[in-house]
Amino acid sequence: MLGVLGGMGPMATVDFMRKLVEATPASRDQDHPGALVLQASDIPDRTRAILAGGPDPLPAMVAGLRRLEAAGATRIAIPCNTAHHWHGALQARTALPILHIVDAVAEALFVRGYRSGSIGVLATGGTLKAGIYSGRLARHGFTCVAPIDQDAVMRAIRLVKAGRVAEAGAILRNQARGLIAAGCGRVILACTEIPLALSASDEGFGDGLLDATQALAQACVSGAGAPERLVA
Amino acid sequence: MLGVLGGMGPMATVDFMRKLVEATPASRDQDHPGALVLQASDIPDRTRAILAGGPDPLPAMVAGLRRLEAAGATRIAIPCNTAHHWHGALQARTALPILHIVDAVAEALFVRGYRSGSIGVLATGGTLKAGIYSGRLARHGFTCVAPIDQDAVMRAIRLVKAGRVAEAGAILRNQARGLIAAGCGRVILACTEIPLALSASDEGFGDGLLDATQALAQACVSGAGAPERLVA
Repeated sequence: MLGVLGGMGPMATVDFMRKLVEATPASRDQDHPGALVLQASDIPDRTRAILAGGPDPLPAMVAGLRRLEAAGATRIAIPCNTAHHWHGALQARTALPILHIVDAVAEALFVRGYRSGSIGVLATGGTLKAGIYSGRLARHGFTCVAPIDQDAVMRAIRLVKAGRVAEAGAILRNQARGLIAAGCGRVILACTEIPLALSASDEGFGDGLLDATQALAQACVSGAGAPERLVA
Repeated sequence: MLGVLGGMGPMATVDFMRKLVEATPASRDQDHPGALVLQASDIPDRTRAILAGGPDPLPAMVAGLRRLEAAGATRIAIPCNTAHHWHGALQARTALPILHIVDAVAEALFVRGYRSGSIGVLATGGTLKAGIYSGRLARHGFTCVAPIDQDAVMRAIRLVKAGRVAEAGAILRNQARGLIAAGCGRVILACTEIPLALSASDEGFGDGLLDATQALAQACVSGAGAPERLVA
């Protein structure tokens, strides 16, 4: 059974759950795979830990992992991009396989025939600073590009967490357009708050946007997420 | 920590989780209470068990309860109206308090100043046959009224489970109008699939519709759900 270490933030986890259900071909309740979702509320801010030496979120994430193990989870997904800075540390503390959201994104890029070039990354400052996308995608021939105004992206993410989605959407659309104008063939919505304000199917972007939350949901459903060629 | 025995159906549980987050006043992740959500996929059809002697869902529900207990839940909510037919049997098997969705609905009716009269119940045939609403609401002076065409309601609920939401919405709007025309002061959306197709804020109904999913979410947030005066 899939265990979801969520709550980072809570509405982003709900968005992930919805995409998980939508990615499952089913016409009745019993066609769906089971899942166990922790809306953890006590995990310190991931970006603050990476950028400003804030409280370490790892102990609370490990505690959440233990709850999911106790309830019978057999594999883990984490619908928070920045939390993947601790992916290795978490994986070292559990026998359960933990999917990696960047592998799911790489798989989605491959499936859509996009195999090299510049990729824009709309993400938290923590995700960018920690190189969560740039390191893992560079191995596959992609070059990651940061937004022109990262402070604006961070402001938008905080607006989403406070429920001010329309304001956030305008900021994010503007930054996405800037990345495309700078030559990025694809822009990853690489913070799980972002698709709450800017959908990958938003008008005017064609197939330019790729939703990391959706990619992770798809990887969970297809049982993939860490194909050999991607983590080699 | 709130434990949610969900998956009946999976998208209804997602809807409940969204309403739970929305009902919580918060501006950052850490303001939210934690929750643990089981998307159980192996619980047999509740309505079929009540109406047609189908497989008993109780053992799978108890197994789900045990997972939530193991993970550290301290109280339980079940975002499925029909499943409340087994509320007493489940409560007898756990020390954790299980909120009752009809108590949450009664509380919502009281809060809105609606204290007696006829109440329409849009629900599964199982919920109606088992008297889940009629018995519990009668004690508070309400008379429950079934839809004119219950087969149509059941067809709409199955359409929602299959993702055919627009077709379902048209059927449900029609049945809701019929109940109001028959003198019901309020119509309860008393199956968690229904608000996916017909929102309580749907135009043309004023404050005539009450969403049981939302009432349960509100009860979870306010820590209420089984106030003394409602279960006496």
